Amino acid sequence: MIKVGIIGATGYTALELLRILLRHPHADITRLTSRKKATSLAEVHPQLLQKIDVPLVPFSIDDFSEAVDFAFCCLPHGASAEIVKELVDRNLKVVDFSADYRLDNWESFEQWYNVSHPDRDRVGSVPYGVPELFRKSISGAQLVANPGCFPSSALLPLAPVIAKDLIAPTGIIIDSKTGISGGGRNPKPHLHYPEANESISAYAVGTHRHQPEIDQLATRFSQKTTSVVFTPHLAPMNRGILSTCYVDPASGKTAGDIFDHLKNFYDAEPFVRVSQALPATRNVSHSNYCDIAVRENGSKVIVLSALDNLVKGASGAAVQNFNLMNGFEETMGLLTEFA
Amino acid sequence: MIKVGIIGATGYTALELLRILLRHPHADITRLTSRKKATSLAEVHPQLLQKIDVPLVPFSIDDFSEAVDFAFCCLPHGASAEIVKELVDRNLKVVDFSADYRLDNWESFEQWYNVSHPDRDRVGSVPYGVPELFRKSISGAQLVANPGCFPSSALLPLAPVIAKDLIAPTGIIIDSKTGISGGGRNPKPHLHYPEANESISAYAVGTHRHQPEIDQLATRFSQKTTSVVFTPHLAPMNRGILSTCYVDPASGKTAGDIFDHLKNFYDAEPFVRVSQALPATRNVSHSNYCDIAVRENGSKVIVLSALDNLVKGASGAAVQNFNLMNGFEETMGLLTEFA
Amino acid sequence: MIKVGIIGATGYTALELLRILLRHPHADITRLTSRKKATSLAEVHPQLLQKIDVPLVPFSIDDFSEAVDFAFCCLPHGASAEIVKELVDRNLKVVDFSADYRLDNWESFEQWYNVSHPDRDRVGSVPYGVPELFRKSISGAQLVANPGCFPSSALLPLAPVIAKDLIAPTGIIIDSKTGISGGGRNPKPHLHYPEANESISAYAVGTHRHQPEIDQLATRFSQKTTSVVFTPHLAPMNRGILSTCYVDPASGKTAGDIFDHLKNFYDAEPFVRVSQALPATRNVSHSNYCDIAVRENGSKVIVLSALDNLVKGASGAAVQNFNLMNGFEETMGLLTEFA
Amino acid sequence: MIKVGIIGATGYTALELLRILLRHPHADITRLTSRKKATSLAEVHPQLLQKIDVPLVPFSIDDFSEAVDFAFCCLPHGASAEIVKELVDRNLKVVDFSADYRLDNWESFEQWYNVSHPDRDRVGSVPYGVPELFRKSISGAQLVANPGCFPSSALLPLAPVIAKDLIAPTGIIIDSKTGISGGGRNPKPHLHYPEANESISAYAVGTHRHQPEIDQLATRFSQKTTSVVFTPHLAPMNRGILSTCYVDPASGKTAGDIFDHLKNFYDAEPFVRVSQALPATRNVSHSNYCDIAVRENGSKVIVLSALDNLVKGASGAAVQNFNLMNGFEETMGLLTEFA
Repeated sequence: MIKVGIIGATGYTALELLRILLRHPHADITRLTSRKKATSLAEVHPQLLQKIDVPLVPFSIDDFSEAVDFAFCCLPHGASAEIVKELVDRNLKVVDFSADYRLDNWESFEQWYNVSHPDRDRVGSVPYGVPELFRKSISGAQLVANPGCFPSSALLPLAPVIAKDLIAPTGIIIDSKTGISGGGRNPKPHLHYPEANESISAYAVGTHRHQPEIDQLATRFSQKTTSVVFTPHLAPMNRGILSTCYVDPASGKTAGDIFDHLKNFYDAEPFVRVSQALPATRNVSHSNYCDIAVRENGSKVIVLSALDNLVKGASGAAVQNFNLMNGFEETMGLLTEFA
Repeated sequence: MIKVGIIGATGYTALELLRILLRHPHADITRLTSRKKATSLAEVHPQLLQKIDVPLVPFSIDDFSEAVDFAFCCLPHGASAEIVKELVDRNLKVVDFSADYRLDNWESFEQWYNVSHPDRDRVGSVPYGVPELFRKSISGAQLVANPGCFPSSALLPLAPVIAKDLIAPTGIIIDSKTGISGGGRNPKPHLHYPEANESISAYAVGTHRHQPEIDQLATRFSQKTTSVVFTPHLAPMNRGILSTCYVDPASGKTAGDIFDHLKNFYDAEPFVRVSQALPATRNVSHSNYCDIAVRENGSKVIVLSALDNLVKGASGAAVQNFNLMNGFEETMGLLTEFA
Repeated sequence: MIKVGIIGATGYTALELLRILLRHPHADITRLTSRKKATSLAEVHPQLLQKIDVPLVPFSIDDFSEAVDFAFCCLPHGASAEIVKELVDRNLKVVDFSADYRLDNWESFEQWYNVSHPDRDRVGSVPYGVPELFRKSISGAQLVANPGCFPSSALLPLAPVIAKDLIAPTGIIIDSKTGISGGGRNPKPHLHYPEANESISAYAVGTHRHQPEIDQLATRFSQKTTSVVFTPHLAPMNRGILSTCYVDPASGKTAGDIFDHLKNFYDAEPFVRVSQALPATRNVSHSNYCDIAVRENGSKVIVLSALDNLVKGASGAAVQNFNLMNGFEETMGLLTEFA
Repeated sequence: MIKVGIIGATGYTALELLRILLRHPHADITRLTSRKKATSLAEVHPQLLQKIDVPLVPFSIDDFSEAVDFAFCCLPHGASAEIVKELVDRNLKVVDFSADYRLDNWESFEQWYNVSHPDRDRVGSVPYGVPELFRKSISGAQLVANPGCFPSSALLPLAPVIAKDLIAPTGIIIDSKTGISGGGRNPKPHLHYPEANESISAYAVGTHRHQPEIDQLATRFSQKTTSVVFTPHLAPMNRGILSTCYVDPASGKTAGDIFDHLKNFYDAEPFVRVSQALPATRNVSHSNYCDIAVRENGSKVIVLSALDNLVKGASGAAVQNFNLMNGFEETMGLLTEFA
């Protein structure tokens, strides 16, 4: 049994993580920390009533590092690296949910996130936690940067075809639609029920921080500077991301070639389903699947993906990473629940 | 043209009021006040863009009472009466959306609302603004207390049958389901989209402040002390209240008698539809209708009503009152929009 | 391993059953039958893609009874008993999801369901499958009648207090609100998205077939003729039932007595949570929990319950019954998933 | 007063048309026709109870053409032109909601719609009913082809900038998201509430019939062969279309140039609002507005539009056309309702 702690345990990704870890045969949850005043998680998330009796406590590095072998850190960017570096120094294994270690270098991070990075030296050397794409480096890692939900939805369908030069590395458009849990647990005016309900809208057009994350990863796969146009939209539903990606096939390549490569690339993967059917977020809701399909329209190829932003887009991927980092079967805890 | 001002113009009921007043042939909106920092209402409600150019200003009694003949006061309880009494003193006509003048006496108000009433003497003498039930006293009034949304949904179907002794004045159960706009415009944790969506729950069971309002009005109609059991529920939709009322028919009376009396009582009313079909909030959404049906089950008679909490339950009724207080056709501004 | 078959495998309750059985350590799904033309279940439910490779076949008694030890029968009433009686004759164990074996006698059934019962003699002797209330008779049974979703939501909170004479057996009002999956998988005009969305309404007032089911069970517990007033409502959400039950406490009894008895009665039960907090369907969604709370208002006591109509209200209870009928741990397959 | 008839009066666009016409000062509804068995529209749309007493009758050319001066034809493609040609022959004015007269030539129509066109000669000469773009030809017309909802949402923001050569006529991507009323009133499996709720998905990728409609209109404005990539998505809400359009600015042109031109082009238009704020379908719901904004991201310019598919995308535009064809003020009946 691995002694597991969750830092920042009251948000939606932490709740989803608990859902998975509570059925994981090798995870023993020993610490849940929060700055909130609640004394039990069931006060914050009533669905947890009688499911867990670990109290909610403030974070203390001494206490935490003694009680915990493996930390999931669900803090906001900036705040996360402050603590993660201490955990790593004390030899804990860590999956960091924040963006702090996702980018290639701290300069990029500081420019996009507009804060000073508290652990500059480590940035760029931390494995990016999409297991299907970086399994080898994750397996031996002490620290993994859990990917952003939108980047996961874009990179799973695009990275293999970029790497194989099946599409042009330029002019990639990623039009993504997310459910509202992506905006977090704290009430905000635009996520107030009557404001968000019965409406769809784009936000952060051209300014979303997941764009450089996609760019840098896509660049790694294409080995050419790649820059995408990413537009996130807010859709009136709790969960799910649908990404509609418009790409130009490389000269002589077709939608069929792209489909075949994806089908083949993910053939043995337990959590990626490449099929003829158009994906819908409903079909992957509450599961760790990413569904992918390919279409064409004129000279464009359209690659579509659907995943649950809280599972495959966050906590499900985190548990895949947990499994890999600990040498467990990668699917452990993740196959029993589905949409 | 009546010069109209709205105090507290940024909430949902004020927005609905604007929808109606902008198409009202005799309303000239001259003042919109708010404590919020926005300089235009379209900043708060983007749907108003290019619809209205009255600026949003802080309330000042001198300015307001000079610019305005008729005030709609959309402030919270307590705060409202502070200002309403001054407006009345300066000879403005006023519809007050708060609960401040709805109850029979200030003692009741202070007990249920837990604040000192700033205008005790006036409480109990202000007409209660359900036009179908109190048209005569509203017509000559300078100040009208706009009714609560739940009380409107309960009293429209029940008051006529209580007054006619068709049902027992005791043991009345009102099980109401409201859309989430009833909780107001300000973000709150339980009205955050992912919390309120895909869920139904009861709240304030036995403690909701609309219960004494229903009790006191029902008592006036029955001329016996009447006390109802009222349970509000929150349903995942923007608008609408459905009230399912369980009553005991008086000895020898049937569901048919109750239906016939309601049908007859509301026969000439433009905004109440008594029919055989079970009501649904969808059918009255965005309109000023209240739909009513009657059923029986064993010894109980079940009276059901549906209305839009923001229209017939608030701003539509307010404009009916505005029309009556000014001697206009009661339906003015209210018939053109419907579900 | 028990060889399990599902008859009528394309509906929502069958899908939910598959979700649970696929993670059940002792269930081996060997047959899935349907009259639909689809050749695989993933055609009907795309979320099942790559989850199951049992083909969808037409039902044949010879083939089915050879391949299967334990049948879940998800056919409509009338059609179900036709097949169930044959399965029982061939010594299969069966959980029947239909209403065919729930009532006390076939006369009642034929009157409410308006069909001739194909297996009259067996009606009245089949255990009613609410495990918390009838565990003993279920444990030794070959055939169990899985309860209706509304009856489960009403009987779990009410049966123990009726049995203990804590409330009057008359005048019980059950106001229930269900999500739309309760209406089944087949498209119907009133369940078409734009018709059902943003609306709440009552239906089948005084005529719903779950009323006699509740009546007959309540009568067994009270040992006096008990007849409830049951009103179902359709709420715009996928899953969940909230039942708001209005009862009269027996002379000298209080809401506190009722709460204490329920708390005590369900203390050791893994799937019923009696707590101070008001239940919400969100908190039990996708789980096998039933959440219960008690309030008072004037002379009435209000008992509220929430459950997921597809899990605790259908397929979760069915798997509890499966476990009991096979001598497995009752919670097997049911604890890992929650809201 | 113009005597107005609606053919195919039971669908969602016809209902929306009635909403508008009932408040139109010069429209007198004299005929409502349908093949459905209902005898009154309120049977089909309960919200119309007591709003209209015109009976629902089967269509007969003799009766209809005698009773009606102006016809709105809401029949499916193919069926529509059969009747429209007869109406035109009898000198009625007609707005046709179907696609039958929208395309440039009957060959295109027959290829995309896979039926023989019953009125080939007229195809190509009928004004396309986007008033902001074709006001002059609409004004003198006897027959107008009401535009598709997606084409309206794409052409309003794009046509003026295409015509002005501000963007490249190639590589235009239109990613559109529609509410579910766009799928019509008849129940369909994928629009069944539990299937459509809590899900977003693309459909008809590369095959939607609105693509050639957009292409042909865009070609007219660019005067070069223009072909767009159009992808419709289904979002879980009743109303609204958001189109996110990705375009390449012409050499030397910027997002600012495009914004300025749109702002200027629509400056005097009552129903198009070009603003800095990102559009949301909520802000135009139930209104005849189309909201437009412009952003840039890398080398791409992103033009976004929001409209209500049933109003500006269908019946609101139809009434603008009705007004123009009859010489009325274009905004008549259309300004009083808004989101």
